[in-house]
Amino acid sequence: MTAPIEAASILAVGSELLGTTKLDTNSLFLTGELETLGISVLRKACVGDDWEGLLSEISTALSRAPLLVITGGLGPTADDRTKEAVAHIFDRRLLRDDEILSRLKQRFLRRGMEMPKVNEKQADVIEGSVVLHNPVGTAPGYLVEAAGKTVVLLPGVPREMKALWGEKVRPLLGRDTSASGVHRRVLKIAGMAESAVEELIKPVYAAHPEEPVTILAGGGEIELHLSARGSAEEAARKLDALEADFRKAVGAEIYGRDTETLEGVAGELLRLKGKTVALAESCTGGTLAGRMTDVAGSSDYFLGAAITYANSAKVEMLGVSPSTLEKFGAVSEETAREMAAGVRRQFGSSIGLSVTGIAGPGGGTPEKPVGTVFLALDSDDGARHGKRLLLPGDRAMIRRWTTSAALLLLRNFLLGRLSPGR
Amino acid sequence: MTAPIEAASILAVGSELLGTTKLDTNSLFLTGELETLGISVLRKACVGDDWEGLLSEISTALSRAPLLVITGGLGPTADDRTKEAVAHIFDRRLLRDDEILSRLKQRFLRRGMEMPKVNEKQADVIEGSVVLHNPVGTAPGYLVEAAGKTVVLLPGVPREMKALWGEKVRPLLGRDTSASGVHRRVLKIAGMAESAVEELIKPVYAAHPEEPVTILAGGGEIELHLSARGSAEEAARKLDALEADFRKAVGAEIYGRDTETLEGVAGELLRLKGKTVALAESCTGGTLAGRMTDVAGSSDYFLGAAITYANSAKVEMLGVSPSTLEKFGAVSEETAREMAAGVRRQFGSSIGLSVTGIAGPGGGTPEKPVGTVFLALDSDDGARHGKRLLLPGDRAMIRRWTTSAALLLLRNFLLGRLSPGR
Repeated sequence: MTAPIEAASILAVGSELLGTTKLDTNSLFLTGELETLGISVLRKACVGDDWEGLLSEISTALSRAPLLVITGGLGPTADDRTKEAVAHIFDRRLLRDDEILSRLKQRFLRRGMEMPKVNEKQADVIEGSVVLHNPVGTAPGYLVEAAGKTVVLLPGVPREMKALWGEKVRPLLGRDTSASGVHRRVLKIAGMAESAVEELIKPVYAAHPEEPVTILAGGGEIELHLSARGSAEEAARKLDALEADFRKAVGAEIYGRDTETLEGVAGELLRLKGKTVALAESCTGGTLAGRMTDVAGSSDYFLGAAITYANSAKVEMLGVSPSTLEKFGAVSEETAREMAAGVRRQFGSSIGLSVTGIAGPGGGTPEKPVGTVFLALDSDDGARHGKRLLLPGDRAMIRRWTTSAALLLLRNFLLGRLSPGR
Repeated sequence: MTAPIEAASILAVGSELLGTTKLDTNSLFLTGELETLGISVLRKACVGDDWEGLLSEISTALSRAPLLVITGGLGPTADDRTKEAVAHIFDRRLLRDDEILSRLKQRFLRRGMEMPKVNEKQADVIEGSVVLHNPVGTAPGYLVEAAGKTVVLLPGVPREMKALWGEKVRPLLGRDTSASGVHRRVLKIAGMAESAVEELIKPVYAAHPEEPVTILAGGGEIELHLSARGSAEEAARKLDALEADFRKAVGAEIYGRDTETLEGVAGELLRLKGKTVALAESCTGGTLAGRMTDVAGSSDYFLGAAITYANSAKVEMLGVSPSTLEKFGAVSEETAREMAAGVRRQFGSSIGLSVTGIAGPGGGTPEKPVGTVFLALDSDDGARHGKRLLLPGDRAMIRRWTTSAALLLLRNFLLGRLSPGR
C-alpha cells in the first residue's frame, strides 16, 4: 500500500442475497467508511456461493478497481468458498494455522462445546495474507495484496464485519488522518416542504460547489446530507462552515444533527425545562405516544396519553363538550383545543398536546378532505396554540407526518418560538 | 426467445446507489417475478452512470447469464446513458422515433408545460428493439435480443419499473403458465420461539425435500417462506399441500398468509364477532394502539386507549387500586388485570386489553428484570386472562415483541382458543 488507493469494489457473497427478501446492507456501512479514507466505491455486486461465479466476480471487480472488499462466505460449511476463490485467483495456497485452530477450539470449549470438525476449515489461512483475528466471532478476516491489488475478506454478519473493519482493516488501510477522505454530516429539518427547503438553500449550495449536498425527504422531515473532503480536522472545519451557512438560510427549522431525532430533541427540552407532557390522540392512534416513548428515560417527562377514537371517549375521558363536537365536529380546531386542555387536566401535566384528523382512506368530506389534521397545545402557564394542516399521501404517510408536526409544535413551544397563542 | 431462459443478471444503474443511504430494492421485486417464470438470478450489481463502467458491467453480466435486466439511467439528462451503452455493445444505432416524440410532447402539454429540449433524447430508440411504452412515466423501456442474449431496460423509479414489468415485459418473457417457475407463499406465526418452530417443522421439511423453506424471524413473529416449482396451478397445488402439512405440524399459531398482519387478523375477528376493544398500555407507550389503528377502518372496533406511564394515571384513569400498586407493583399481573378491567369500563368496550412491563434499559430488578411484561384481557362476557412474559433484546425489540404477544392474546381469545380464564 504505497500509492494511495482511490477506488474500490464491494462484493457480497451469499445465496440468501439473491432471493426476494434480503439486501446487502453491509455495503452502506463500508461505503461510508471507505469514503472517509478517500476511497470511492465504483461498483458493487452480489453473488451466490458457486465456484465459477466467485472467480468471475472477483476477477471483474479487480479489473475495475485496485481494492476489493468482500463480505460473506467465510463460514465453516462446504458452501463457504470465498477464501479458496481468492487464494486461487492470486495463486496462493491455504495453510492450516495451528494458533487459530487452538483459539477456535478454546472458543467452543468456553461455551461447553467441542468444536465440530467442519470448523477446522476456518483455521486455514491464505498464504502470505494478513490474518485479521475476529474479536466477536469464529471466522477471521484477511487482507491480501498482490500485483498492485488489495483484497479484504470480511464475515457477512454485520456485527462481526463492523468489528473487524473498525479494529483491523481501517487501521491497516487508513493512511494517517491528514489524508483526504470524505466526511459526512446530516442536518435534520422538520415542518417544511422539500421545495421550500430547496429554495432557501440554493444560494448556500451555489456558494459551496466543492461540497455536494443531498436532500432526503420522508415522513414530514427532511435531511440534508453534507459531505466535505479532507483530513478529519479539515473536513470538520468545512462542515462547520457549511452547517453555519445552512442554519443561517433555513433557520431554527433545523432541529438536529446526525443521530438526533425530533422525539429525542423535544424530550430533552422537556427535561431541561422540568416540564411534563400528556397527549390526546385521535387519527394518529397512539403512534405519537409511541414515538415519544421510543426514547429511553421518557418516563421522566411523559405522563401518558389518551387515544380517543370514539367521540364518547373524547367527552368522558377528556371532557370535550358534546356541543363542541356537534357544532364543529370531532375534526376541528375547537375539539383539538378542548382535547389538549382536557388531557393536561386529566394527567396533571404541565403541557397537553392533542391531535385530531382524518388519516383516510375513508372519512373525508369536501370541507375536510382526507389529510385534514388539527393540532393543539395547552400549557399550565396559560399559553394555548392551535394549528390546521392539510397533508398529502396515504394513511401511513398522513399519520407519520402528523406525529412529526406535533413533535415540532411541542419543540417550538418549548423553545419560545411560537407567537403568543390565544 | 425460442429456448427457455433459465438464468438472469440484474444491474441497477445510478450513482445514488453507490452512496451510504440508498439500496437497490427493485432487484427484490424483479427476482420474485423472474422466479415465477422459472428464471433464477445468478448475480446482481450496482454501477454509476460512467460510460466505461456501464460497458464493463453489461458485458460481464451477459457473459454470466443469457438474460440481463437493467434498471435506471433512462432519464433525459446527459448522465443517463444506459440505452447508449446497450446499443453500443450490440452495435445498434439509436433512432429518433417521431411517434414517441409526439407522445412525450403531449404528455407535457397535458400538464400545461412545454417539453424541455433535453427530453427529446427519450424518443431515441435502440434499433431493432422492442419499445415498451411507459404507462406511468416518460421513459420507455426496451427489450433487445441478439446473439442468444436478451437485455431488458427499465426505468429506475419503482412505480414505473413495476408497471412496465407487469404490462409489457412479463407477457413478452413469460412462456405460458404451464412453464416451470418458482412460486412463493408466506405463512406467518406469532407467539413461538424460532427454535420451537424449527423443531416442529423438521419432519415437514424432510418430507418435502423438493420445496425449500426459509424461516425469517423478527419482532416476535416468524415467517415461513415456502416455494414450489411448476406452472401457477401445479405450484399452487404443491403449496397447498405444503401449507396443510405445516398447519398440521405448527397448529393454529399460524395466524395468516402473505400480506396478512396480526393486527389485521385480530381486527377482522373483532369485526366478525361484533366486538369492540380498548387498550391500556404502559411499557409499549402507544405502539400497540398504533399497530391496531394502522388498519384502515379500525375505528369500527377500536374505541381507544389509555397510555398510563405514571402510576397516578393508572389509578385515576383506569381505577387501578393504590393498594394493588403498592402491594404488587406497577409491573405485575394484578395491576395488568385491573388495567384491563378499568379500560374496558372507561371506554365501554366489549374487551379490555392491557400491557405493563419493563422495556429498559433502566428499571429492572432481580425479581423483575428488563423484559418482564404482563398482559391481561378482560371481557364483558366475564372471561379474564393474564400472562407473564420474559422477553429478550433491547428496548425496541421488547416493545415490538410485547405488541405481537398482546395481539396474539386478543386473536386467540376471539377464536376461543384460551382455556377458561379466572
